[in-house]
Amino acid sequence: MTIGTNGNKISDATVRRLSKYYRSLKYAYDRGMRTISSQELADMNGLTAAQVRKDLSFFGAFGRRGLGYYVADLQRNIARILGINKTWNVALVGAGNIGRALIDYDQFRQQGFLIKLVLDNDPNKVGNIYHGIEVKDFANADEEIRKNKIRVAIIAVPSQFAQGVVDKMVESKVRAFLNFAPITVQVPDGVFVRNENMAIELEALSFALTNRREPRRTIGQ
Amino acid sequence: MTIGTNGNKISDATVRRLSKYYRSLKYAYDRGMRTISSQELADMNGLTAAQVRKDLSFFGAFGRRGLGYYVADLQRNIARILGINKTWNVALVGAGNIGRALIDYDQFRQQGFLIKLVLDNDPNKVGNIYHGIEVKDFANADEEIRKNKIRVAIIAVPSQFAQGVVDKMVESKVRAFLNFAPITVQVPDGVFVRNENMAIELEALSFALTNRREPRRTIGQ
Repeated sequence: MTIGTNGNKISDATVRRLSKYYRSLKYAYDRGMRTISSQELADMNGLTAAQVRKDLSFFGAFGRRGLGYYVADLQRNIARILGINKTWNVALVGAGNIGRALIDYDQFRQQGFLIKLVLDNDPNKVGNIYHGIEVKDFANADEEIRKNKIRVAIIAVPSQFAQGVVDKMVESKVRAFLNFAPITVQVPDGVFVRNENMAIELEALSFALTNRREPRRTIGQ
Repeated sequence: MTIGTNGNKISDATVRRLSKYYRSLKYAYDRGMRTISSQELADMNGLTAAQVRKDLSFFGAFGRRGLGYYVADLQRNIARILGINKTWNVALVGAGNIGRALIDYDQFRQQGFLIKLVLDNDPNKVGNIYHGIEVKDFANADEEIRKNKIRVAIIAVPSQFAQGVVDKMVESKVRAFLNFAPITVQVPDGVFVRNENMAIELEALSFALTNRREPRRTIGQ
């Protein structure tokens, strides 16, 4: 939770929706729209206009009656709020299948998350070059993290190594982790972790297929 | 939204938490716990005990005062509700970097999502074998989908092909899509889509790093 400009708490769900609005605004701008209504933003994301207005009011962004929001302004404001108006140097730990796919993941780059460092402890991988980045030895993590000014890391190592990797990187002042290992890692105060588990999205689908009773159903996100 | 046994609507956020409880229960059971309290389940997931009790009450699962829930029973119930008490045959479309990583993603298999069919339209990929599965030509999608009894598909193709792929698979009676392409695909009533965008999790982290003002902060999921 964070405190917004209007003094209210900003929930994680709101932050997720901001990421979606940002994408909708980019889509709208690319198609020549210069203003957008809360209803249009709502329709693009399967939400109500009231929800959109409430989310945006956290940041002091208020549309004008009959005009809506200026697309470019709102996009810029949301980028600033999300911290994606700048680039972040990111380390990736674990050059296995998932890790190697992520090195080349367009969406990271487009949002300003630049993978500058790839670490592994497997002698068969250290020194290899994947998508133009040489794999460095995790034994030298501290030095490499400082050299590359890394504050954000993606963890794509087997479960049993995840906590140890995170502990070591916290010591090297990494402050945020996107964790692909199927385990909950512990971090001290002031350090942030998000767990990415792609099976959870499939479970939402199997839930929907298993429990459908009505003809029409939309799954929110 | 779906209607629970108590007549209330089950939100997407509840479904997500059920997936987490399921993992916590598995973890607890593997460590010898046979009963678990709502407080313990809450602590494992950064939630309140009231939230856990509310989520579980949707499905008529009520813990007993001083005893809590039977771990194995609750796990079995949640698996049934999520539709993961059986296996699902899954098709993967797009044998690029992300697609090939997903073929071998343990978490899918463990939750009963079995990738039985890999489709691509690239002549350089059709016929190749990745993690034991031969890539089939998307031109034969309809036949392969029927043969492999596929109802769920993972879309890992470039954005501009995603809608066409989904349209064709909907005709072949695929009813649920996990979409990795960074575009919103349209589906008819009764068909479900989840969009997986791994950058959104990184944005939640950059938001946290950008907006931290208090010494202690936890990001919910």
